[in-house]
Amino acid sequence: MKKQLSIVKIGGGLIENPQALRRFCELFAALKGPKVLVHGGGKSATALASKLGIKTKMVHGRRITDKESLEVTTMSYAGWANKTIVACLQSFGCNALGLSGADGNSISAVKRAVSEIDYGFVGDITAVNYSLIEKLIKAEICPVFCALTHDGKGQLLNTNADTIASALSAAMVVGYSCRLLYCFEKDGVLSDLKKNTVIPLLTEELLEEGVGNGSIHAGMIPKLENGFKALQAGVAEVIIGNENILKEKGHGTQLK
Amino acid sequence: MKKQLSIVKIGGGLIENPQALRRFCELFAALKGPKVLVHGGGKSATALASKLGIKTKMVHGRRITDKESLEVTTMSYAGWANKTIVACLQSFGCNALGLSGADGNSISAVKRAVSEIDYGFVGDITAVNYSLIEKLIKAEICPVFCALTHDGKGQLLNTNADTIASALSAAMVVGYSCRLLYCFEKDGVLSDLKKNTVIPLLTEELLEEGVGNGSIHAGMIPKLENGFKALQAGVAEVIIGNENILKEKGHGTQLK
Repeated sequence: MKKQLSIVKIGGGLIENPQALRRFCELFAALKGPKVLVHGGGKSATALASKLGIKTKMVHGRRITDKESLEVTTMSYAGWANKTIVACLQSFGCNALGLSGADGNSISAVKRAVSEIDYGFVGDITAVNYSLIEKLIKAEICPVFCALTHDGKGQLLNTNADTIASALSAAMVVGYSCRLLYCFEKDGVLSDLKKNTVIPLLTEELLEEGVGNGSIHAGMIPKLENGFKALQAGVAEVIIGNENILKEKGHGTQLK
Repeated sequence: MKKQLSIVKIGGGLIENPQALRRFCELFAALKGPKVLVHGGGKSATALASKLGIKTKMVHGRRITDKESLEVTTMSYAGWANKTIVACLQSFGCNALGLSGADGNSISAVKRAVSEIDYGFVGDITAVNYSLIEKLIKAEICPVFCALTHDGKGQLLNTNADTIASALSAAMVVGYSCRLLYCFEKDGVLSDLKKNTVIPLLTEELLEEGVGNGSIHAGMIPKLENGFKALQAGVAEVIIGNENILKEKGHGTQLK
């Protein structure tokens, strides 16, 4: 039987709130068995860009990454966010080690081809370095990924953190029974925004229906698509919800 | 016989010049055997701080690191500088992996006690994680350290890159025959600033004499003290000079 590996993704918003970050890190450190963390950092990058007078351009919820934005993103994600999380996890006895996709050539990508939209320095993942991540896990290290990849030719690329978490979990199924946990501020995928009712089990059919009749928020679609993609790749379990999904079963929305 | 390990320290100035960075990375990637890189990033942090309207305070060539400065330093050193170097080294086939002292608990430190000067969030190194660095080297990974450490209680600390390079090389003598190479913009330690004459071999006595009569620039003292400290700890070779010291013997200043 394959050993279980938890891949947890957290939103960047958490990092800006020291109390919330400490609470999350304590919960994450207590999670048993090998684990990998993936974090965003969107808000901090936007705030830094604004302080520097750089306008953040977004299309369909995705950042348009020009040269200046890439600098800001790298400073914010790989610098402040990643190291703050790593130092905090270390304080709870979790042997965290921060990585961008360039580090140890852990995640390779190609710059997204320009079609209708030019996303700029945005990377579509081509390979996950299974061997490196396995070595780190076997050395009892917890890899902490920020939302950056590289093209192997010296270019860093911005890549969506939800996508990184999905690609990582899909790649690690070779040697592990993978659980993918998307942690965010909501209790799960909501069937009715007003009533705040969590859908306990979500199929692709239910998703299509919910998006069609407007009961599932359109902003959830990329996250859910990433989740279903992971399931199709052999990931054993995909759960979306608040921090409680780290504690025990029965919280959040499970994709099926 | 112990295997040779090269510990190379480069100044932060290099990173701001893409051509110089590529040239250095090509040279460093060609360096045979296990190796570790340590980099500063002083100018980029100062530039970022100035853009953000944060004043950089310096006392005796050392940055005073308040909370805001630490954020800037972390973004600049661990973010932009570290990832730019790592991505560039990867493009030359060097399997670089960037680290702060918090990552994998690689370098522990304590916040410097307040005496005449309050340095703020500045760390004095207490331990280097030999086992982690050895594991990375054995996995054919080249660790790339930025000038940050941590206290194990969740606090990142700013630590001089020359000091980190010295402490790393001193710690690695347990299992390796270490060479410490300080790469900077000058040809070596100069005996006469106007004539630009390199001192090929420098002893502690010559250093004292040179500082006394003003022929050795006072700004060199901390670097040289770090170099001699490494020698005393059993480091086999300490050389200071420009990039040519990576290529062959006979360049720069050797400490003896």
